[in-house]
Amino acid sequence: MAKTDSAKKKVLVLGGGFGGVFAAKSLAKRGRDTVDVELVNGTNYFVFQPLLPEVAAGGIHSSDAVVPLRQLLTGVQVRQAEVAGVDFAKKSVIVVQGSSRIPVELTYDELIISLGTTVDLSRFPGLPEHALTMKQVADAHKLRNHVLSCLEMADVATSPAQKRQLLTFVVVGAGFSGVETVGEVNALIHQAVRYYPNVTKDDIRVLLVEYADRILPTFAEDLANYAARRLKLEGIEVITGVGTKSATSTAVELTNGALIPTGTIVATIGNGPRQLVQALGLDMKWGRIQVDREMRVPGLDHVWALGDVALIPLEDEPGDDPQAYAPQTAQFAVREGHQLALNLLASVKGNDKKLKPFAYKSKGSLASLGTTKAVADVYGFKLTGFFAWLLWRGFYLSFIPGFQAKARLLFTWILNAFMPPNLVLIQGNAPATRYIHYRKGDVVFEPGMILDGFYLVLSGKLKLKIDNPDTDEHLVRDLGPGDHVGERMMVRPLLRTGLVEAVEDTEVLFVAKKDFLRFAHDFPVLRKYFEKYIEKNFGGQGKSFAPQGSEQQPEMEKSN
Amino acid sequence: MAKTDSAKKKVLVLGGGFGGVFAAKSLAKRGRDTVDVELVNGTNYFVFQPLLPEVAAGGIHSSDAVVPLRQLLTGVQVRQAEVAGVDFAKKSVIVVQGSSRIPVELTYDELIISLGTTVDLSRFPGLPEHALTMKQVADAHKLRNHVLSCLEMADVATSPAQKRQLLTFVVVGAGFSGVETVGEVNALIHQAVRYYPNVTKDDIRVLLVEYADRILPTFAEDLANYAARRLKLEGIEVITGVGTKSATSTAVELTNGALIPTGTIVATIGNGPRQLVQALGLDMKWGRIQVDREMRVPGLDHVWALGDVALIPLEDEPGDDPQAYAPQTAQFAVREGHQLALNLLASVKGNDKKLKPFAYKSKGSLASLGTTKAVADVYGFKLTGFFAWLLWRGFYLSFIPGFQAKARLLFTWILNAFMPPNLVLIQGNAPATRYIHYRKGDVVFEPGMILDGFYLVLSGKLKLKIDNPDTDEHLVRDLGPGDHVGERMMVRPLLRTGLVEAVEDTEVLFVAKKDFLRFAHDFPVLRKYFEKYIEKNFGGQGKSFAPQGSEQQPEMEKSN
Ligand SMILES: Cc1cc2nc3c(=O)[nH]c(=O)nc-3n(C[C@H](O)[C@H](O)[C@H](O)COP(=O)(O)OP(=O)(O)OC[C@H]3O[C@@H](n4cnc5c(N)ncnc54)[C@H](O)[C@@H]3O)c2cc1C
Ligand SMILES: Cc1cc2nc3c(=O)[nH]c(=O)nc-3n(C[C@H](O)[C@H](O)[C@H](O)COP(=O)(O)OP(=O)(O)OC[C@H]3O[C@@H](n4cnc5c(N)ncnc54)[C@H](O)[C@@H]3O)c2cc1C
Repeated sequence: MAKTDSAKKKVLVLGGGFGGVFAAKSLAKRGRDTVDVELVNGTNYFVFQPLLPEVAAGGIHSSDAVVPLRQLLTGVQVRQAEVAGVDFAKKSVIVVQGSSRIPVELTYDELIISLGTTVDLSRFPGLPEHALTMKQVADAHKLRNHVLSCLEMADVATSPAQKRQLLTFVVVGAGFSGVETVGEVNALIHQAVRYYPNVTKDDIRVLLVEYADRILPTFAEDLANYAARRLKLEGIEVITGVGTKSATSTAVELTNGALIPTGTIVATIGNGPRQLVQALGLDMKWGRIQVDREMRVPGLDHVWALGDVALIPLEDEPGDDPQAYAPQTAQFAVREGHQLALNLLASVKGNDKKLKPFAYKSKGSLASLGTTKAVADVYGFKLTGFFAWLLWRGFYLSFIPGFQAKARLLFTWILNAFMPPNLVLIQGNAPATRYIHYRKGDVVFEPGMILDGFYLVLSGKLKLKIDNPDTDEHLVRDLGPGDHVGERMMVRPLLRTGLVEAVEDTEVLFVAKKDFLRFAHDFPVLRKYFEKYIEKNFGGQGKSFAPQGSEQQPEMEKSN
Repeated sequence: MAKTDSAKKKVLVLGGGFGGVFAAKSLAKRGRDTVDVELVNGTNYFVFQPLLPEVAAGGIHSSDAVVPLRQLLTGVQVRQAEVAGVDFAKKSVIVVQGSSRIPVELTYDELIISLGTTVDLSRFPGLPEHALTMKQVADAHKLRNHVLSCLEMADVATSPAQKRQLLTFVVVGAGFSGVETVGEVNALIHQAVRYYPNVTKDDIRVLLVEYADRILPTFAEDLANYAARRLKLEGIEVITGVGTKSATSTAVELTNGALIPTGTIVATIGNGPRQLVQALGLDMKWGRIQVDREMRVPGLDHVWALGDVALIPLEDEPGDDPQAYAPQTAQFAVREGHQLALNLLASVKGNDKKLKPFAYKSKGSLASLGTTKAVADVYGFKLTGFFAWLLWRGFYLSFIPGFQAKARLLFTWILNAFMPPNLVLIQGNAPATRYIHYRKGDVVFEPGMILDGFYLVLSGKLKLKIDNPDTDEHLVRDLGPGDHVGERMMVRPLLRTGLVEAVEDTEVLFVAKKDFLRFAHDFPVLRKYFEKYIEKNFGGQGKSFAPQGSEQQPEMEKSN
């Protein structure tokens, strides 16, 4: 099955999204005798991105929104691995796979690049660290868990300001995925709220922020207006003509100067090229690989590109008009895949004259609004409301590849019509190190909080104030770059902190408690450093707020 | 709804497993006018543990095996928080909740402890670090992902020894959960294998290891024998009368001296008390809280305990006979919950004479064997095979609390009858720091592997050998406690390693690459230390194996 027949050409497909999968599928079907196809993807499944907002809302399981590549692609060799680099001269690709991380070299006769794009929020200070995104299954899980834990915490919050912040949810960007995400998240919250006795609907604020002056810019204006009205009816604040400026862990700042206290920012903006793709050394424009109308990479033989990563002209002289290039949608990627397969097979057989330029007219646009409502513009017919929503579901059902996947999804949808929302909050491991931004004036800790990790100041300034009558500890200290809070967890497992405030805009590196303790205890340089430090600054003890009750360590979920 | 009526007694339930949930449910139903009930649990859902092996096999979704506590317990205030300590004198409990980690004090009139047990593998060197367990939803996910990634890696493995190790799966312990786990995992592997062209059934070894001289010790012998035969028919090696001695990341060692190379060890043994429970200062026996036959904790007023955490006598003079105490099963915990609720209500009303000792006779035992087969012993009737399996399903369906949960589970089961296995491998964040054991002679790295993290030797000795003709780097070095490998990732992102072998039994602390790099770059003490170290030992460069092709960093899934 995986044997390579020397008469056949080896086609290597990089990326298992819409572009890569449909190209590989077509090749395997039409080129059985001509080519051997291998597809490399970072995960062992294909992600149906349009369904991710519904996964985030818990309406469907994540496994309903993905299809295992091996089951989807019969006749194609599937390899779960990370592409690390391409050597076009040697016609080889380096991949690293598995926990052993041995780099493996794969050679090709024909190469297809369909690696998609990534989220690039670097233009917005604080957003890369504090915004949730919506590209992968893990993102949808994270958003869902985040929203539910905000509700759990709000239900027992002690300060009204904290409660308000926990119950404010901001979605940035109102394209397809922003609109669907805000609709689904809003529906989840409003269905869930009745199980939280201390949270009422009036406590909740859900905002959709869009820089353009209307939402759904790729839709006809009347449909977009209908969508905006529907979202408002559901209680969502729709803010257009306003961009995002920056974010911290406690707020988002808009270009109109407004500062919205929130712990939840979902960014659906900022598509950018992957580092790997940038490093390939190919001609790029607008962050995409420039190809000719037949989807070949100019200047290189036997290299093709399609999907979001490629800039495919729809005319001979496209110039700088974005409309003259194929848009970055699943619909187009699928058609590109078919055409690319035909072109590649013609080329392999030496029929270069049979290569055809890519041409396709969109069949229309569909966007769900969350609560059994949608907007649709199909073959020129415009539809809104419940029927548009049914059409949306029908369309995706027909579109999702694989019979089993279809059946699973249909059953789940039918079931959901009779079911209350699923509120299960399954937490993954939080990342052990991360960067946190604080704005001048932000309270990092209130007195008495139990420290959850080690905080290292990278830039800016924090002020620490300890005032503890019980332990007779009093202290005011400025913390600048290189200073830290939390080292005393080494001597006092349940260490509580004093008041910590940001005196300036500050950036901090956070290292989670368990990971910090292991490293600091076991690594001699660090242990020596911290022992001296604690001796010098605190007289060797881990004083500070003694926890009430017993001092045993609260037991956490095991994680290894 | 959550208001506290001063005439009512405040009952605080610690733990939302079978014991806590059924006690709280009964109290809320029968004691509406007498008590206010609040239940504290670490997760916001109840776990139906008997279904976890099926979650691990991917037959059902994790959310089918759990029920949100808020939806399950109407009339009960639910709080998602970690119990940190109890002050019996003050009648208060300290909990920490949410990301702000502010400790909150909850007072009670009556306290119910139902915190279950935890897994304690400390008697087996290496097992705590290298065994997977089966207690929580996260455990089932981890096992599933682990098994699937073994298949993915085996499909592209280059060395036969590595392939063999990847395809050997060992389950330790043959009680309920061991037998069900091995059956389900074996079924998953055998259904999945046809999608992996380079893996055949003959490559796969699945073992069940039990210290007692037969499996399912709580079942009648003929049923247990039937179960053993069935498992063997499915290709599982059943080894009885042999215990586990120790484990490393590459093998498990048995008490009969056998060393089985494997990357997958699932331990279903080693129930032990939680740290928190041990620290309560109560009388314990066999790791459980001693209570009287009415489930009161002697010597303390208004404190009750039930479920796995409690040792409940079934007779007045139980002595040291384990049979004279309630067994640690869900069936018993549920009955205990009902009885405890009645006793507590009687006690609150001052009818201490109405308290009844707990008494219950098991209705039987059921264990699924994975492939539509089971063994059952119900009301004395013994059943095996397909009908026992149907009974198993029916029983759990009737048992799982909540109508929605039942319906969901039933639909999923029906669907599965027509579906191929679900091979989706959704990876969570791996823990950033962990301990790894190597046995003398183990190869830690083969030459050319890309380093995935920083390895710090804690005890024992490793030998590093670099022999790289391309970069003209030659090096032999012993690494003892305090020495490390991987620091040069700081100057060379795609650093490859030479051969690293364990010269003695060795323990290592591992810190994942991204987390190490952040911390080592940003923390001045560490940066200085490593810069000097690299300068001194490698002349300041990150020589060693230069990756073939380009040196850009393989792009990883984002994780924050
Ligand atoms: C939330 C959301 C909703 C959307 N809704 C719609 C919609 O309603 N209608 C519509 O037409 N379009 C929609 N889109 C857009 C559509 O999903 C994309 O246009 C489409 O997925 C592009 O396909 P692709 O193959 O080019 O890239 P992708 O689908 O991004 O696939 C790229 C693949 O490459 C893999 N990869 C990347 N780097 C590496 C590496 N180094 N090693 C190994 N593998 C790698 C990735 O894992 C991924 O599987 C939506 C997108 C999002 C995010
Ligand atoms: C894989 C498996 C299969 C099984 N199969 C069967 C079977 O077929 N039949 C059968 O009868 N029994 C079976 N059992 C046993 C049964 O599940 C247990 O006996 C039962 O769950 C015990 O209930 P419990 O309430 O005492 O404890 P648990 O169910 O363990 O509940 C304890 C609860 O306390 C919470 N908790 C603990 N510490 C804290 C803290 N510090 N703060 C907050 N919350 C905390 C935990 O999160 C948990 O929710 C099986 C067990 C396993 C693991």
